[in-house]
Amino acid sequence: MKHIFVIGIGLIGGSFALDIKRQYLDCVIYGVDKSEAHLDKAKSLGIIDKKAMLDDLNQADVVIVAIPVDATLEVLPKVLDLVSDEAIVFDAGSTKEEICLKVKNHPKRRNFIAAHPIAGTEFSGPEAAVCGLFKNKTNIICEVEETAFKLQEKALELFTALGMRIRYMNPKAHDKHIAYVSHLSHISSFMLGKTVIEKEKNERDIFDMAGSGFASTVRLAKSSPAMWTPIFKQNKTNVIETLDEYINNLKHFKKLMQEDNFDAVFKEMETTNHIKDILNGIQ
Amino acid sequence: MKHIFVIGIGLIGGSFALDIKRQYLDCVIYGVDKSEAHLDKAKSLGIIDKKAMLDDLNQADVVIVAIPVDATLEVLPKVLDLVSDEAIVFDAGSTKEEICLKVKNHPKRRNFIAAHPIAGTEFSGPEAAVCGLFKNKTNIICEVEETAFKLQEKALELFTALGMRIRYMNPKAHDKHIAYVSHLSHISSFMLGKTVIEKEKNERDIFDMAGSGFASTVRLAKSSPAMWTPIFKQNKTNVIETLDEYINNLKHFKKLMQEDNFDAVFKEMETTNHIKDILNGIQ
Repeated sequence: MKHIFVIGIGLIGGSFALDIKRQYLDCVIYGVDKSEAHLDKAKSLGIIDKKAMLDDLNQADVVIVAIPVDATLEVLPKVLDLVSDEAIVFDAGSTKEEICLKVKNHPKRRNFIAAHPIAGTEFSGPEAAVCGLFKNKTNIICEVEETAFKLQEKALELFTALGMRIRYMNPKAHDKHIAYVSHLSHISSFMLGKTVIEKEKNERDIFDMAGSGFASTVRLAKSSPAMWTPIFKQNKTNVIETLDEYINNLKHFKKLMQEDNFDAVFKEMETTNHIKDILNGIQ
Repeated sequence: MKHIFVIGIGLIGGSFALDIKRQYLDCVIYGVDKSEAHLDKAKSLGIIDKKAMLDDLNQADVVIVAIPVDATLEVLPKVLDLVSDEAIVFDAGSTKEEICLKVKNHPKRRNFIAAHPIAGTEFSGPEAAVCGLFKNKTNIICEVEETAFKLQEKALELFTALGMRIRYMNPKAHDKHIAYVSHLSHISSFMLGKTVIEKEKNERDIFDMAGSGFASTVRLAKSSPAMWTPIFKQNKTNVIETLDEYINNLKHFKKLMQEDNFDAVFKEMETTNHIKDILNGIQ
């Protein structure tokens, strides 16, 4: 693994570059990005060694596609057209079904491994890249059987070197589950932020009264709309289903309050407290 | 300030006890709690010096009432009945209107200062008490003009010694604003937790797929139902109003998705991104 190409040198791509460089000392990291400014920034920060273009991909041993999921649909087939038979290509997108479908019949399908590392922050761009982002994080691999055996091994060696836990799922199940534990959280956070901003025209009041609880709950509302809009688009059906259930639960809570049924309000919270046990494993 | 009584020796009361002890070396901290186990725990952890009862309050220089807001309505008038003319009594409740109303005509009203330190964690009980919890946090004081001038000074000296910023508000405005930046966050978090738990019967799936974003968004769903139920009850009207607006915003977001209006979805998020500037001041 000498020639590593990172397409999209932002938070995820940049963090992969930093960690791979630390693990594979003699590798060369090539950055490809539609933003020349991002490439220059990534180079000056030491995240990439060289700026490159798609046409250089024939040299690649590893290609990481870390761009918004709509762009992945466009770029991934082109990448597969260009790489050699020995190259392993993986993405890092938060949706898997459409991406897998898009390359299903590509002659180089076996050079691709569909991945979703559950890692990130609310920040974006090359400045957001950090070392160790993937350590102890889950990486969900979809349709592993569609990837050439030797290239599976190569990818898994890299993921393991970066400290990731591997889980295998089919793309449909991935998209359904991730809608609950990731996509819905982002919408709940964005809409919470919107509700508060709309109400409080005088922002000093929010600023002074908001504590760490509010900050934690709306943290994800800082996330990049350019990244998240195509995710919601590709996972529309699942996301709408989770939103329906979430809205119904909120309405039910409101109804209990309106009926002064505070014993039931208490029980709603008590039952959900058990999220503690689930969260203990994450943080 | 020698004899400090803390009624309710949990997260907030215990943290006050720890910080006051560090600032006023010769003070004696008395713990009052309906749970004997909490008192014993607080004593063994060095949070309080002595266990006490309400009947001992005549010795108090300072009394901190840090119990659920429904219990405060019961206990605060009794506390005021018992304290000397020189004692300052303050609460730490997340609602202010009903509490202020309850003691409005109490002959010792001027011994009370209504306070809401915007500080806390999702944990509860004496083990949750931490040093420095109030440092650089906002403390909202309501109806300050109803407190005797000398006792205002005494309270402010203590709050300042603990590192708190003081803001003055009327109780109605407090309850209205705090519904947005605190109470609604808790409901959004509890209902998010509920939605995910309900869906995912096999918890290992959640555990493996959930990342730090989900953990941050549902953190508040670990909070104590015994503390939060009476808050929602006392602030019912304001909380229902915020819930209505939140639900409407979520429905609108869903509608945009259903109509495939992803340009508008992008704009919804882009506009809310500006929460960054507000949050920068909090964390």
